[in-house]
Amino acid sequence: MALHGVEDVFRVLDLSGVFANAVLGGVIARREKLDPIGFATLAVLSGLGGGLLRDVLLQHGTPVALTDYAYLLTAFAGAAASYLARVEGPLWDRVWPLMDAIALGCWASAGATKTLAVGLGWLPAILLGAVTAVGGGAIRDIVLRRVPGVLGGNTLYATAALVGAGTLVLVYRTGHPTAASLCGLLVGAGVCLLARWRGWILPSA
Amino acid sequence: MALHGVEDVFRVLDLSGVFANAVLGGVIARREKLDPIGFATLAVLSGLGGGLLRDVLLQHGTPVALTDYAYLLTAFAGAAASYLARVEGPLWDRVWPLMDAIALGCWASAGATKTLAVGLGWLPAILLGAVTAVGGGAIRDIVLRRVPGVLGGNTLYATAALVGAGTLVLVYRTGHPTAASLCGLLVGAGVCLLARWRGWILPSA
Amino acid sequence: MALHGVEDVFRVLDLSGVFANAVLGGVIARREKLDPIGFATLAVLSGLGGGLLRDVLLQHGTPVALTDYAYLLTAFAGAAASYLARVEGPLWDRVWPLMDAIALGCWASAGATKTLAVGLGWLPAILLGAVTAVGGGAIRDIVLRRVPGVLGGNTLYATAALVGAGTLVLVYRTGHPTAASLCGLLVGAGVCLLARWRGWILPSA
Repeated sequence: MALHGVEDVFRVLDLSGVFANAVLGGVIARREKLDPIGFATLAVLSGLGGGLLRDVLLQHGTPVALTDYAYLLTAFAGAAASYLARVEGPLWDRVWPLMDAIALGCWASAGATKTLAVGLGWLPAILLGAVTAVGGGAIRDIVLRRVPGVLGGNTLYATAALVGAGTLVLVYRTGHPTAASLCGLLVGAGVCLLARWRGWILPSA
Repeated sequence: MALHGVEDVFRVLDLSGVFANAVLGGVIARREKLDPIGFATLAVLSGLGGGLLRDVLLQHGTPVALTDYAYLLTAFAGAAASYLARVEGPLWDRVWPLMDAIALGCWASAGATKTLAVGLGWLPAILLGAVTAVGGGAIRDIVLRRVPGVLGGNTLYATAALVGAGTLVLVYRTGHPTAASLCGLLVGAGVCLLARWRGWILPSA
Repeated sequence: MALHGVEDVFRVLDLSGVFANAVLGGVIARREKLDPIGFATLAVLSGLGGGLLRDVLLQHGTPVALTDYAYLLTAFAGAAASYLARVEGPLWDRVWPLMDAIALGCWASAGATKTLAVGLGWLPAILLGAVTAVGGGAIRDIVLRRVPGVLGGNTLYATAALVGAGTLVLVYRTGHPTAASLCGLLVGAGVCLLARWRGWILPSA
């Protein structure tokens, strides 16, 4: 029962993250003057690309983004929202960083959990946790001919995802998967928010 | 017997589409002043990239483009043809749009059919039908540092593929897979040709 | 015993290639002024990208780069080395071409062997041998918004890999897999070194 509650919370946060990132994809599509196909494509890449990349690398069955309809429908809803309304202004600027950080923590946690669940070890778990969290944005950047923001000069997205996924692995090993998911999410989101607030970036070479 | 005939027609159209798109890949390789490796690579990406992407996403065995030799050999033949001869001029300009439209309809139909055949539902079937039809060109554009043409400002490729794949799913559900393949192909190719002839494009944001 | 010795030599050469290419990824990350995440990402793409691409295309289980820890740890070591020290100068300029050529031959040979081992034929074996050898560098180039060097105007990387993989397939067919691996490696590396020394490039269109 309690476990079920946590799973439901995770699903809501996961899909909220898909929606928020799909909306961001749409905002970028508008800047690039794309058509509805472009909006939908960038929404899917931004909201689902990290999970797709993780599942293609794990090679354990068709990616969940293709089998669980909630994912695609949520991404398309985000695309439609940002196509129909101009999603910009003070409310978006205030809500977006929070949703972004929660999505990052949620995806880092979920990606690392799935990697451990198929039998891989701590190192790929941390790596694929980070891939799940930041891979979608990186693919979107590549499609739009930008050097992915996570590679340098940006706030601590990848670092926050690695710390969140690392936290998950540590707590998971103690035999408490549900607590591990929550800790991974909170630590990943916390590092992301803290880095944004303090303006932390990694030193470039 | 009748079914076998339709399958043969589909295979001829499928491989013709691979050849035509491989030749287009070669035409683009010539513009970019690439060497034979570049010709072959762009031919494979243009002619087989959509199917490769679909099969990698489906995760149901090695992509057919790697197991059925006809695909790679046809793509290489297209690369060789466009390397040895300048495939440009009025005949190419007249034949290309027709082969292009047929390939699009054929691939949208085949991609959606394969997705349904491995047990997925209508939504991924339509999506992967479109990915099969336009994914190869999009990957080729990304490799050449162009924003993929299907994302905006171009004729209705992705839309035509979505309509064709949607038609396939609808007719397939009535229990007539062969008729569904044909309808998907014809509707997809028809929308593509009509859009090109009428100059239809989607409104950009 | 003898076989075991050859396997050990192959593993050392394989991991040396991962390290050398990871260092190259780091050298490029420094030029692009990336941060440590960027160094690690380019190191993984340069050193492991070809094998990841091959395993994703083969669809025969989780990529070995994710299951065998030596690969990721070696790639990260290369990233760290090039982040901490400026890996440039006459020694690097002299050692790099040799390590590069050996890695190319080793990967072409290993990629083709794995493709044959999962039951595919000579054509995909040669193709995936070349993908293993040059795919990582091509992905890295795409991420950095460059047209991949292997497509034209560069020394004979892809050609050397194709010749090496082709040699492997021919000797493998005679029933001597170990000799085949060695011949594929030596021929691939030899053609690569010879091409660099003589300044051979393919004619562009």
